[in-house]
Amino acid sequence: MTSEHENEARRTDLPEGFVDALREALTDGSVITDVDDLEPYLREERGLFAGKAQVVVTPATTEELASAVAICAEAGVGMVPQGGNTGLVGGSVSNAGEIVVSMKRMNAIREVDAVNFTATVEAGAVLADIQKAAADAGCLFPLSLGAEGSCTIGGNIASNAGGIGVLRYGNTRQLTLGLEVVLPDGRVWDGMRPLWKDNSGYSLKDVFIGSEGSLGFVTAAVVKLFPEPKEMQTAFCALPSPAAALSLLSLARKRSGDQVAAFELLSDFACGIVCEHAGGVFPLGERRPWYALIELSSSRENSDLREVFEGILAEAFEEGLVEDAVLAESLDQRERLWVLRERTPEAQKKAGGSIKHDISVPVGSVPAFIEKASAAVEDYMPGINVCAFGHVGDGNIHFNMTQPEGMEKAAFLGHWERVNDIVHPIARDFKGSISAEHGIGLLKVKEIKDYRSAVEEDLNARIKRAIDPQNLMNPEKFI
Amino acid sequence: MTSEHENEARRTDLPEGFVDALREALTDGSVITDVDDLEPYLREERGLFAGKAQVVVTPATTEELASAVAICAEAGVGMVPQGGNTGLVGGSVSNAGEIVVSMKRMNAIREVDAVNFTATVEAGAVLADIQKAAADAGCLFPLSLGAEGSCTIGGNIASNAGGIGVLRYGNTRQLTLGLEVVLPDGRVWDGMRPLWKDNSGYSLKDVFIGSEGSLGFVTAAVVKLFPEPKEMQTAFCALPSPAAALSLLSLARKRSGDQVAAFELLSDFACGIVCEHAGGVFPLGERRPWYALIELSSSRENSDLREVFEGILAEAFEEGLVEDAVLAESLDQRERLWVLRERTPEAQKKAGGSIKHDISVPVGSVPAFIEKASAAVEDYMPGINVCAFGHVGDGNIHFNMTQPEGMEKAAFLGHWERVNDIVHPIARDFKGSISAEHGIGLLKVKEIKDYRSAVEEDLNARIKRAIDPQNLMNPEKFI
Repeated sequence: MTSEHENEARRTDLPEGFVDALREALTDGSVITDVDDLEPYLREERGLFAGKAQVVVTPATTEELASAVAICAEAGVGMVPQGGNTGLVGGSVSNAGEIVVSMKRMNAIREVDAVNFTATVEAGAVLADIQKAAADAGCLFPLSLGAEGSCTIGGNIASNAGGIGVLRYGNTRQLTLGLEVVLPDGRVWDGMRPLWKDNSGYSLKDVFIGSEGSLGFVTAAVVKLFPEPKEMQTAFCALPSPAAALSLLSLARKRSGDQVAAFELLSDFACGIVCEHAGGVFPLGERRPWYALIELSSSRENSDLREVFEGILAEAFEEGLVEDAVLAESLDQRERLWVLRERTPEAQKKAGGSIKHDISVPVGSVPAFIEKASAAVEDYMPGINVCAFGHVGDGNIHFNMTQPEGMEKAAFLGHWERVNDIVHPIARDFKGSISAEHGIGLLKVKEIKDYRSAVEEDLNARIKRAIDPQNLMNPEKFI
Repeated sequence: MTSEHENEARRTDLPEGFVDALREALTDGSVITDVDDLEPYLREERGLFAGKAQVVVTPATTEELASAVAICAEAGVGMVPQGGNTGLVGGSVSNAGEIVVSMKRMNAIREVDAVNFTATVEAGAVLADIQKAAADAGCLFPLSLGAEGSCTIGGNIASNAGGIGVLRYGNTRQLTLGLEVVLPDGRVWDGMRPLWKDNSGYSLKDVFIGSEGSLGFVTAAVVKLFPEPKEMQTAFCALPSPAAALSLLSLARKRSGDQVAAFELLSDFACGIVCEHAGGVFPLGERRPWYALIELSSSRENSDLREVFEGILAEAFEEGLVEDAVLAESLDQRERLWVLRERTPEAQKKAGGSIKHDISVPVGSVPAFIEKASAAVEDYMPGINVCAFGHVGDGNIHFNMTQPEGMEKAAFLGHWERVNDIVHPIARDFKGSISAEHGIGLLKVKEIKDYRSAVEEDLNARIKRAIDPQNLMNPEKFI
């Protein structure tokens, strides 16, 4: 099946009458063909790819989308779903002959149910808007990531987004109870069940979640909410090593009653470039090799979280796990501490070319992975800067590189694949993944095949063929 | 596809030479054909069905199982996986011409990793043994249900078991990180990734979890662990109504910092029969219409959980949510309180015939569902006893009936389908499920089709056909 798809020459033009049919099915202004108007939908976050679609549609309802999809299916035209277009792997980059379907107009937050702890949202709803609607109802929607101001929940679901809350609350998959999906032939699957328990067939929602738009369009979802945190305590700690971070995490989980909401590791290089290029203010006396940003939270009012945190830090000092630390005294200070972690990507952009990896390994293997992979890339290219950071609590390390001082950016980026070829096999040796939370998209679609067994490739191909037999959904990506 | 399967006449005998081929592939004693030895594998928990297989195999390794499966695939013989044979829906009942594959010899607990918070276990490992191995390493494996002393993790995964810890820790699906599966053609899929984040293809594990043995044999799994609770506080409360239970749950989640580990609702009838027939001791002064068994837990030592719980109960008294309550003073007393909830199924057996429903509805709809469904069945059969209990925190109610006093058991059970036909549509009206946590199996395989849309039926059939094109895995059940 896979090879059939690959060998088929895909058409790069659109059939006659196709655009007219779309215009007839959709409301005015929902079919975009003007070159200037197309541009925002063809851009790609990191500038690695350029979209080539000549048509973008922006349906307003599930019915409109279903009509458009049926027209595409009839005409054999490939479809590329797009949410906030903030993805990092080119998952919504279009080829010539395909159309982009933007979900941004289907952005209603239909319901927030504070008794069932669920929200019902449309795919184009911006993550930050959902967070806010939940908070307005005294609840928490815990999905949180850098792009939250512009990414959409549909994109989060398509890529099974992770972010900083996974340790405590799970990935987007775990946060999603129900889905509505427009299938590749234009039929609609209504799986919008606001249920915490339901075993009435295969878990269809889990087939669509994380499928990166390769099986259909997520149009709406029922997501889980949690009691709103009433107290947060945030510390920035200097650590001697990533191994110390692990022991500190374990200590913090146990001593706090598993109230660790975030546990982010940051190398000194990563911290340094945020201070130099992205407005970070270093909060400790002296630079150290590693830092952890730790947040405890509780939905209980007047809890003793701060005392508990002080106790954890005191114990960690004694055990040599922490060398220096600051516990935020105010929300302002908390935000300044978070800047050090959140602006790492921005700082990396300003510090020159970067080669990125989205690795996960078993939590206990994080220190060994960092050590081995750092040595290997430094051996390959003396002067390369390892800019490692990430969600150590769930084993997910953004093992990024910034170019050596003085090197040309383009020359450095020319080493992308070779550096991948050094880092990724090391992740595999630790039973890790080379695609932890950003997805596969266009960026890793070829390489990922080397990391899946023949049986796994076959199972993936069977599922794709079962649900999208014409291979119309986001073709040439993911699978 | 479905109809093809249905119309195909399935053979009820085994091909010549088939048993010899199995004996050759498996170690001595792993192929059972003696009638007396077969019996335990053909029995069914509730006596509703009887297995008819003439052969049971008990492979010791994945390789042995894969060989046996390849022989079955070659011969076109249907295969019925079996774990602890404790299921409630006839999911491991065999037809003539099929073989039962018992996973009980593949029961190793291969590894408990207290740093990664994971355990690696074989499918036949008994749930209670995994709980114990986790506890020995200072961790918690939170899956907990009535049959835990004999059910196996493979069966839990196949049925996506729920139990009492779902509110806090999720279903078996959420607790499972990696799987190994022998596919219907005898190939082995190695998805044993001990990773908290991995987006490197479709979520194959989620296709197999909850598929009730219809797509392959789960042979091993990597499951999540949590920090071990250091403190538990358990209360038994008398409530005026199920609506009060919901408000109390919300209060308890918020005031405790989301440390509610269990929240079980129990009708007075259910409580009464446990005291009458199953060794329960009523712990309060006076009987009331409803009770809640609530447990808070914390992995923190010396926490103020008891004071917090006392505060919650005091507030609940003031608001009229709780009319009487006892907070366990000792582990012994805690166990006696749990008896009231855990022995409900045993008490129902002793109290006569029972007609059972495994319903879930949105949490906020639990009171309205109970009220409406109770009125409907009492209207249908005056004197019928509604024995409702369950995990109200996740919307899952075991809405069971015990026969009216004086009625013949067989006559009562003759009403099974008609009572289902009253209760299940009410669940659907509340956007609920008629198969919350026990599965579909043989018991609900026909009825479930009325509760799935045509699109959903089609998607289920496509997945079945994609992975088990010969329809050899647990045929005529689930799908």
